[in-house]
Amino acid sequence: MCLSRPELIKKNISGIAQYVPGKSIPQIAEDYGFDPDSVIKLGSNENPLGPSQKAVEAIIDHAGDVSVYPSADAGELVEAISTYTSMSPSYIVASGPGMDGLLDGMMRLLIESGDEVIIPTPTFSYYEIAARANGASPVFVERMPDHEVNVNGILDAISERTKIIFLCSPNNPSGTMVPENELRRILDASRALVFVDEAYVEFADRNVAALVKDYDNLIVGRTFSKAFGLAGMRIGYGIMPEWLRSEYMRAATPFNVSGVAIAAGVAALSDTEHLQRSIELARTGREELKREIPFKVYDSQANFVLVDVSPLKAADVSRKFLESGIIVRNCTSFRDAGDCLIRVTVGTPQQNRMVIERFNDVA
Amino acid sequence: MCLSRPELIKKNISGIAQYVPGKSIPQIAEDYGFDPDSVIKLGSNENPLGPSQKAVEAIIDHAGDVSVYPSADAGELVEAISTYTSMSPSYIVASGPGMDGLLDGMMRLLIESGDEVIIPTPTFSYYEIAARANGASPVFVERMPDHEVNVNGILDAISERTKIIFLCSPNNPSGTMVPENELRRILDASRALVFVDEAYVEFADRNVAALVKDYDNLIVGRTFSKAFGLAGMRIGYGIMPEWLRSEYMRAATPFNVSGVAIAAGVAALSDTEHLQRSIELARTGREELKREIPFKVYDSQANFVLVDVSPLKAADVSRKFLESGIIVRNCTSFRDAGDCLIRVTVGTPQQNRMVIERFNDVA
Repeated sequence: MCLSRPELIKKNISGIAQYVPGKSIPQIAEDYGFDPDSVIKLGSNENPLGPSQKAVEAIIDHAGDVSVYPSADAGELVEAISTYTSMSPSYIVASGPGMDGLLDGMMRLLIESGDEVIIPTPTFSYYEIAARANGASPVFVERMPDHEVNVNGILDAISERTKIIFLCSPNNPSGTMVPENELRRILDASRALVFVDEAYVEFADRNVAALVKDYDNLIVGRTFSKAFGLAGMRIGYGIMPEWLRSEYMRAATPFNVSGVAIAAGVAALSDTEHLQRSIELARTGREELKREIPFKVYDSQANFVLVDVSPLKAADVSRKFLESGIIVRNCTSFRDAGDCLIRVTVGTPQQNRMVIERFNDVA
Repeated sequence: MCLSRPELIKKNISGIAQYVPGKSIPQIAEDYGFDPDSVIKLGSNENPLGPSQKAVEAIIDHAGDVSVYPSADAGELVEAISTYTSMSPSYIVASGPGMDGLLDGMMRLLIESGDEVIIPTPTFSYYEIAARANGASPVFVERMPDHEVNVNGILDAISERTKIIFLCSPNNPSGTMVPENELRRILDASRALVFVDEAYVEFADRNVAALVKDYDNLIVGRTFSKAFGLAGMRIGYGIMPEWLRSEYMRAATPFNVSGVAIAAGVAALSDTEHLQRSIELARTGREELKREIPFKVYDSQANFVLVDVSPLKAADVSRKFLESGIIVRNCTSFRDAGDCLIRVTVGTPQQNRMVIERFNDVA
């Protein structure tokens, strides 16, 4: 079977560099001959405390119900998110798979061929993939040397065709946030929508959800994959103006959050003790990592730190970590990240000490 | 907050009629004052035997692992699907949410503004929603009076801009199949891709998966929601030519099948006994329903039957079913279905007898 019909594929697909996920434990255990139980995964910003036990129990309780469709709009989960965020359900959509599902739905609602999206780099690489896959041209605005957003650069990059401006805050992979006054400057100056990705915001000291009430062009994206410890369940949500939510729902994929995911999400939101412990662990650990790692470590408001290992190379350093059974994230696949950045998830105190020790070994 | 920016929304979104899901048990219990346990749901073609117990156990076994990302491409599930379908993994993608996720990904790979898709109506309404949401113009070709596909009509409708031809086989809501020779006629005549939706194919006496080896323009979509009893888990898959699969993977949303869904899917595929029982139940039950319902019932190769209640109206008849605690599907929301068609999922023998009795009451 050698035939193919490449002419049917959209032209901008060929420009897409496939998403590079963090390495998995089974993969590293096999590649390096480790017992999987001994491998430490600090490459995907998962919760080192695992999931909320309430969420685990909810999944078990609902395992027998999986032959039935969930609600098309995950209404029960939207209600629980409303309580958690103190925002009316009329501003909220639940999404799956994860916040990526929200990004997919939002782009398919908005993007026509020739539209532009603004992406401050380096940042989460799925914005670019989803933008190109939907026919948009990404316009990249490099961050400042300290990984702050270049607001003037963004304002200059806005054109008649700009549909979405992506701001990841805290930013992946740097952990830096967009100050609220700078976000307001962008919101005021732009007719385009501003998508603030708050995947890591529980670990930070502030969030911008309430601004959705004041701006008709602000969307806040959130996830259950990080502080809530439910990366495997693929649940996200969006907070957006009511006018946009009603348009979004017309074009959304129905039943995009599974039944057990709805139950797990509701339970996780109710487990404030697990959430608080997860947040404290990340906050304490990131300070220790910043203090003890013998390289430049950027200030982070997330559950990871970004380490500049120059003059060493990130590929070499991350390989040395893998050789000792620790998965960290070589950021070379992030556009404009250069080849000296490594992202390390904050782990348990013991894992953090092992990370510090390994950095001392390679330094 | 009254402002809005409708000019940012894609023009064809306004043409979308939001997906109408089947009614849920909690909704009907509340609307009609029933105990939820007494409501019988035969409106969404779910498996009346429930999920495979092996799948339930797999979900419970993996409930503690949900803080970790699944594999980005659900590789373990793809392997199991490969064994089940006797097709190489190089032809297979797993998808979430459900087969809708495959439709979303495929359209975003292919559709540019102005492209056309051909939809033989009445059929599953998400094709139209996803097509419009991605910027395509749907071209509708009405089925014949017996709900067979109008092949000549489809061939006439193919234009230079046709990207995808949708063929639901067995068709939702009629249960009719596309004969293989007619499928071959369409495949041979068309430069466009032909998407054969085999969501219900386990209940039929044949399938077309193996033809993917012979045609570079055939995609077969499948789901775990029907015969495998996993509607709540939102898992689908696609079988497609290798050239198309590699393009698809570039643009696919990563991690689109959750970790517990991967485990549940693998387990369900291994439970051939549950699958066989589910198939037998549907085959026996649909014959009984066809024989005993005092209206015209179309021949079905699926786990549902389509009933033409004329001169009665589907809205009236389905309301009478709801009043007695039985959810059936009023097909009025299916384009070109008219207002006299009701779709009834084949249930347990006892449920089927209640359905027959109720049809006799209203006749």
